Amino acid sequence: MDYEDRFRRHLESLHSEGRYRVFADLKRRCGAYPTADHFTEEGTRDVTVWCSNDYLGMSQHPKVRAAMHEAIDEVGAGSGGTRNISGTTHYHVELEAELADLHGKEAALLFTSAYIANDATLSTLTRLIPGLVIFSDAKNHASMIEGIRHGGGPKHIFRNNDLGHLEDLLKTVPLDTPKIIAFESVYSMDGNISPIGAICDLAEKYNALTYLDEVHAVGLYGPRGGGIAERDDVMDRVDIINGTLAKGFGVMGGYIAASRACCDAIRSYAPGFIFTTSLAPAIAAGALASIRHLKGSDLERARHRERVRTLKGLMTNAGLPVMDNPSHIVPVMVGDPVHCKAVTDTLLTHYGIYVQPINYPTVPRGTERMRFTPSPVHTDAQMSYLINALEELWAACPVANGQYVRLAAE
Amino acid sequence: MDYEDRFRRHLESLHSEGRYRVFADLKRRCGAYPTADHFTEEGTRDVTVWCSNDYLGMSQHPKVRAAMHEAIDEVGAGSGGTRNISGTTHYHVELEAELADLHGKEAALLFTSAYIANDATLSTLTRLIPGLVIFSDAKNHASMIEGIRHGGGPKHIFRNNDLGHLEDLLKTVPLDTPKIIAFESVYSMDGNISPIGAICDLAEKYNALTYLDEVHAVGLYGPRGGGIAERDDVMDRVDIINGTLAKGFGVMGGYIAASRACCDAIRSYAPGFIFTTSLAPAIAAGALASIRHLKGSDLERARHRERVRTLKGLMTNAGLPVMDNPSHIVPVMVGDPVHCKAVTDTLLTHYGIYVQPINYPTVPRGTERMRFTPSPVHTDAQMSYLINALEELWAACPVANGQYVRLAAE
Ligand SMILES: Cc1ncc(COP(=O)(O)O)c(C=O)c1O
Ligand SMILES: Cc1ncc(COP(=O)(O)O)c(C=O)c1O
Repeated sequence: MDYEDRFRRHLESLHSEGRYRVFADLKRRCGAYPTADHFTEEGTRDVTVWCSNDYLGMSQHPKVRAAMHEAIDEVGAGSGGTRNISGTTHYHVELEAELADLHGKEAALLFTSAYIANDATLSTLTRLIPGLVIFSDAKNHASMIEGIRHGGGPKHIFRNNDLGHLEDLLKTVPLDTPKIIAFESVYSMDGNISPIGAICDLAEKYNALTYLDEVHAVGLYGPRGGGIAERDDVMDRVDIINGTLAKGFGVMGGYIAASRACCDAIRSYAPGFIFTTSLAPAIAAGALASIRHLKGSDLERARHRERVRTLKGLMTNAGLPVMDNPSHIVPVMVGDPVHCKAVTDTLLTHYGIYVQPINYPTVPRGTERMRFTPSPVHTDAQMSYLINALEELWAACPVANGQYVRLAAE
Repeated sequence: MDYEDRFRRHLESLHSEGRYRVFADLKRRCGAYPTADHFTEEGTRDVTVWCSNDYLGMSQHPKVRAAMHEAIDEVGAGSGGTRNISGTTHYHVELEAELADLHGKEAALLFTSAYIANDATLSTLTRLIPGLVIFSDAKNHASMIEGIRHGGGPKHIFRNNDLGHLEDLLKTVPLDTPKIIAFESVYSMDGNISPIGAICDLAEKYNALTYLDEVHAVGLYGPRGGGIAERDDVMDRVDIINGTLAKGFGVMGGYIAASRACCDAIRSYAPGFIFTTSLAPAIAAGALASIRHLKGSDLERARHRERVRTLKGLMTNAGLPVMDNPSHIVPVMVGDPVHCKAVTDTLLTHYGIYVQPINYPTVPRGTERMRFTPSPVHTDAQMSYLINALEELWAACPVANGQYVRLAAE
């Protein structure tokens, strides 16, 4: 049994498919984001980051940084324990109260990430409610899929945002069987948005719980940054809201917001919550400052919307294959993993533009793409430069519609 | 279908078993650890923390805090992405190199916690090596158990540290079937230590991989803080080492260290690694500073050993039911969840001593205990005060051998 050989063969198959991932080694410049240092074997180079999920640039906000500095000075680095065994600090308690308020729920529960929040909550719900049948959107994030798989209960997959299909599936299960509909608000790779209210209508009709992942919406949508459910005025109709502190809020960590009994049950029964060190106090403090700021300020959201609109307009005018959608995500389709990597490598090396190629398993095979995320701090000049680079690249080697032609240099 | 009622019934069963968990809301005082503010409904009170896993007090180390401050000033709060999509910073790259060096391995891979490192790695190994049979120590941590469960492959449980039993089980599987032995070095609730070398002998004999959780040992044991495997000079015989940055190192996060191909395969295939925002740069920077310090300084480890010896001696002399073990963990057996909570509540309320009751599912029912973790910063005076409090409590209501008598006050 040659274990090393097994590992190597798995890696070779990634190489041969052209989807072996190389991480860009970066150091963003605080105060000068979206610029960053890119560490390469040939030394350090300047790049502009175009694919961060620090959507509003909150990771660099003075209030967020000040709160983190203060927490480090007050209590130190790590929490030193699980939430139960000495790892609950006052920052955690305050943050959970703030999150409950943000989503208009009785309670909230922190996790080390939204990944583990989804995984732990969905798998534990299946244990707490025997017989629970899960209705899961086909485009749901890997963390929800893992949580559903780990729960081990029966499930039905409905086509992305397809209410008719969802209702057909709901009808196949007796009305008094416990059910939950799990879905997202903003699907992060296509940028489309779900009809939350209409899904809640179906949930009511068929007596199902609703579980909504607002990871790509919290901080960004709604008058206080509560997400699409807040914007659409349907927060109270969603039973469990999942969010992250790592994207719009610019820090790290994840959570659910729900009824007191639901949060307390997950708190008490989910291994992924119980058996791990709590978020570092400085992380909780930074997130708290970020949420509080974005609850009261619409400036970042307004500027974000304007920047997104501008970039989408520039791309459309340039005839680039930008995928249409109503959100802040700007995906440009390439359709092949090797081509996608070639284009983004050229952008990085020749133009100092960093946009990571998105390939399987993050998106389905054949839909490989670039995914641009303009933020309030991306300037007009940076946008023009990006459009020029893409136009030059497209002129040299048409990537649109998968009609990619290899560059001589490759 | 009344979902709320379901949740409430689960909570009631915890209350009735006496194991409903109440988190202590704390704020440790940086520079004055182990003292902390305890937030209660009646206001804030002074407490001494006796149950933190910040074993060496590294969360307060000036180098660790300085590194975190610097990273926040340099790059901001969050990383803004998954490791693949703009979330790899130079701190992550340096930290992985430092961890590989610490354990004498070719590579290391960071996760947001050791929990998710265990869960993601063990479940993914089963997917990468079809037919893999797992041999798992009966006392393995919940995160390993979840990873093994999520992998869904065949498994055998051997009695804690029982080499004979392990060998009997290994013999039942053909020699050319892929196998892995998963175990810990320091079992954190009993404080016993595994015979790593002897387990590696069996692994060689039966051609099994070895997977070792050193979560409660890294930073604490070995000349450079590499853990029990370093202390026992058997690091090179262990295939995959798992560790945390949240306990001995005082910050947050987890990792594995292994061969380059193994780490690369997990990096490329594990959803729990791929689909989540990377550790905040300041967390990686703080952990880096902590590891570097503890690689070069034995001071904290020596002082830690002395403090542990002293506390164990004081407890033994006082006739307290301290569980004997060769590690830094000081468990005092109570044997009943309700009694355990009553004792620790009294310690907290009457004496300002904070030690969380440890109950099921963290330990088996009937073995509920207090678990003290003396650190280099716990003083002689704090130890005497603790022993006096325990003696007074034991005199009023003998807890030893489960012979607990209810206090009038309850
Ligand atoms: C043996 C063991 N492994 C793993 C973990 C998880 O470590 P972390 O807190 O980094 O998630 C813990 C405790 O938290 C543990 O006790
Ligand atoms: C839809 C969705 N849910 C959950 C997550 C996980 O969030 P976190 O990064 O906080 O783990 C992500 C991405 O990271 C995501 O895209």
